[in-house]
Parts: sequence; structure tokens; C-alpha cells
Amino acid sequence: MHEVFLDELKKLNTRFMNMVIDVSEEIDDSTQAFIDHDKKAAQKLIKDDKDISADALKVEKRTLKLMALQQPVASDFRNVIAILKATTDLERIGENAMSISAETIRVKGNKRIEATEKIITEMSQKVTFMLDQVLKAFIQNDETLARQVAKKDDEIDQLYVKARHSIIDGVKADNTAAIAAASYFIVIRLLERIGDHVVNLAQWVVYKVSGELIDLNEDESVEDELDLDTNNSKDKN
Amino acid sequence: MHEVFLDELKKLNTRFMNMVIDVSEEIDDSTQAFIDHDKKAAQKLIKDDKDISADALKVEKRTLKLMALQQPVASDFRNVIAILKATTDLERIGENAMSISAETIRVKGNKRIEATEKIITEMSQKVTFMLDQVLKAFIQNDETLARQVAKKDDEIDQLYVKARHSIIDGVKADNTAAIAAASYFIVIRLLERIGDHVVNLAQWVVYKVSGELIDLNEDESVEDELDLDTNNSKDKN
Repeated sequence: MHEVFLDELKKLNTRFMNMVIDVSEEIDDSTQAFIDHDKKAAQKLIKDDKDISADALKVEKRTLKLMALQQPVASDFRNVIAILKATTDLERIGENAMSISAETIRVKGNKRIEATEKIITEMSQKVTFMLDQVLKAFIQNDETLARQVAKKDDEIDQLYVKARHSIIDGVKADNTAAIAAASYFIVIRLLERIGDHVVNLAQWVVYKVSGELIDLNEDESVEDELDLDTNNSKDKN
Repeated sequence: MHEVFLDELKKLNTRFMNMVIDVSEEIDDSTQAFIDHDKKAAQKLIKDDKDISADALKVEKRTLKLMALQQPVASDFRNVIAILKATTDLERIGENAMSISAETIRVKGNKRIEATEKIITEMSQKVTFMLDQVLKAFIQNDETLARQVAKKDDEIDQLYVKARHSIIDGVKADNTAAIAAASYFIVIRLLERIGDHVVNLAQWVVYKVSGELIDLNEDESVEDELDLDTNNSKDKN
């Protein structure tokens, strides 16, 4: 019976890791299409949608079945729980990536703001890197790496505030950029949220390895966000 | 032992229900402050933050402890799992409500767009109603009600697209509304996302009652969102 369980758990882990790789690619491809103003690529991405939600549902079903039938304990229990909880975040990341593709289709042909697009590229590269690292931490049971990944989210938050101001400046300079601005605001928020979801993933890796359940997002309060905003806009408003 | 378990489960359910009531209030209060341009109320909300994240962590810890020690089965297992999964969504809803308060503080004193604010009020009332109904469904084990709540999310999505166009029109008419527009885009997105999270909650109520795990968000594809957008902007672009 235990061998059957370990075999099932192995499959579950593989499925989960595939989901992480899929969403990482989705972020990368979606943001690239957005920056390249490549409507066709975005349409293809939406059409070929890897359907992370369906995968998440499958993984959740397997997880619940495994738990109900085998009642795993100790590190096996934590492994299964980590996957069960992490699927919600992976699903959200996938949805956010698809929403970035949707913005590419919307924004095409309108006046753009170059400074903002540079920041968006940087944000995308950083969150994809974070996601790859969190996967590595999951596979290698590396708690330290998971905590390091969570810390990197501060950089995403700073870029988010910077991008926000660059959009406002862009529209003030030329109000024909208003339609593009709508998309920029959405895209930077999506990337910022993806960062938060990656932190949640890191949290579940820490739980899987150590059994400790902690809030790695806790440093990031709304007050901090507003402080950042004020400092950044000091010389602008 | 079973009595101890039932007692613990009862406490867990109560804590969970309190979280739902808390986030519902947070949405209500945050959006009201935003619409009233009430910076003070928003600051108070952020200061008095009910700290949904900390509550979620507590509930998750209790849930995992209960599962590890008591290994619940059948409907008890589903009840515990539903709570474990739903906390992620409640936490996100709470964060989104706090982000709405943050926008109130940012936007104060700038030129506003009245048409957009009307739609925002409507969105907020609808998501709060949905959340109240999902709580009722959870308490009464009412699968039908849970499915009805999920369906109502279509209305939120339609209002989201409508709001988006009203913002673009507002900025085109008067580009001094650009700073306010940044906040509107964020707030409508936050409310739209809250709607999605409520659908997830409904999904876990269905699982709790029936053991069936389904994706109630599945009707809502990115393609639909783009279609909606096109229809809505037909006479505008």
C-alpha cells in the first residue's frame, strides 16, 4: 500500500511541477507579446491556453483522493497539503498571464509609453526568475532559497510604484496615451499580483520542508505601499 | 475523541464564518470611503485593519492540526478541506479591500469621474451581496444557492467592462482626470477580482456539500472578456 502511495505522490509532484513550468512560460510569453505589440502572438496564447485552471482542478482532485484514501502523515502529509494549497496560486498566476495577453489585443494600435514598457519588461523578468527559483526550492526542499525568493518581491513592489508614476506622467504629457494607460495599469497590477502569488508558493515550500506555516507576505503592508508611493512622487506632484 | 473533534470543528467553522463577515465589512467600508472621497475613513480602515491574513494563518494552522491529529473522514473531511482552501480566497479579498482604501488616500483632491464612481458603487454592492449569500450557503449547506452566487459574477464582469470604458471616456474629455483614472482602473479590477474569489468560495461550498469539485469560473474565459469589451466599445472607438 505504501508503495502505491509513494508512486501516486511522485506523479502528483510531477504534475505540480509541470504546472509551475507552464505558468512560468505563460508569463514570459504573454509579457513578451505585450511589449512587442504582437497581437497575433497574444491571440495564439489565448487560443492555445495551457488551461492551468483545468490542470489545477485535476491536481486538486488527485490530492483530495490521495488524502482521503491514504491519510498520509508527517512529511508526506505536508507535501500533499503544500500542493493542495499552492494550486490556487498557480491557477491565479495563469489567469493573470492570460489577462496580460488580453491587454495586448486591446492596446494594439494606440499611442504607447516607452518608459513604462521598459519597467514592465523588467517586472516580468523578475517574477519569472522568482517562479523558477521557487520551483527549484520545491524540488530540492530548500527552505533558505524559498525565503530568499519571497524577499525579492520587494523589488517587484518598487517597480510597480515606479511604473505607476511613469504612466501618469505619460498621459499628462500626451492624453492620446489614455487607452494604452488603461492597459498599462492593468498589466503592472497583474505582474505585481503574480509576485504576491509567488511569495505564497514560497510559503508553502517552507511549510513542506519545515512544517512551519508563516506569512512571508507580512512585511508588505498597505502602509508600506503608500509610503513607497509618497517617496516616489515627492518631486512630481 | 470524536466529541473533541466535533467541538474543534465547530470552533473552526465559527472562526471561518467570522472571517467571511469581516471581509464583507471591509469591502463595504473601503468602497464607501472611496466613493465618499473620505481619506480619514480610509486611513482608519487601514489602521484598524482586521488583519485577515493573520486570521487566515490561524485558521490554516488549526485546520492542519485537526487533519494531522484526527484524520477526519467523509463530510467532516470535506468541511475541513473547504475551509483550508477557502482561506486563500478570503485572505485575497481582504487584501483587495485594503488596496481600495489605499486608493482612496491616493486619489483625494484630484479631478474625479462621476459616471465611473456610480458603477463602482454598484459593483461593490453586488460583490458584498454575493459574499453574504455564499456565507449563507456555507452555513445552510445549500449547494443550489452556492451555484446561484457563482452565476452572479457575470454581472460583475459586465460592470467591470462598462466602468473601464467610462474611465477612458472621462480622461479623453478631461486629461486632468488621469490621476483619478489610475485609481479607478485599480479599484474596478480589485472589485472584479473579488467577484472571482467569491466564485471560488462558492465552489468550495459545493464541494463541502456534495463532494463534487467543479470549476464554477470556467464559463468566464479571456475570450468572453474580450468579446464583452468589443461589444461595449463598438460605438466608442
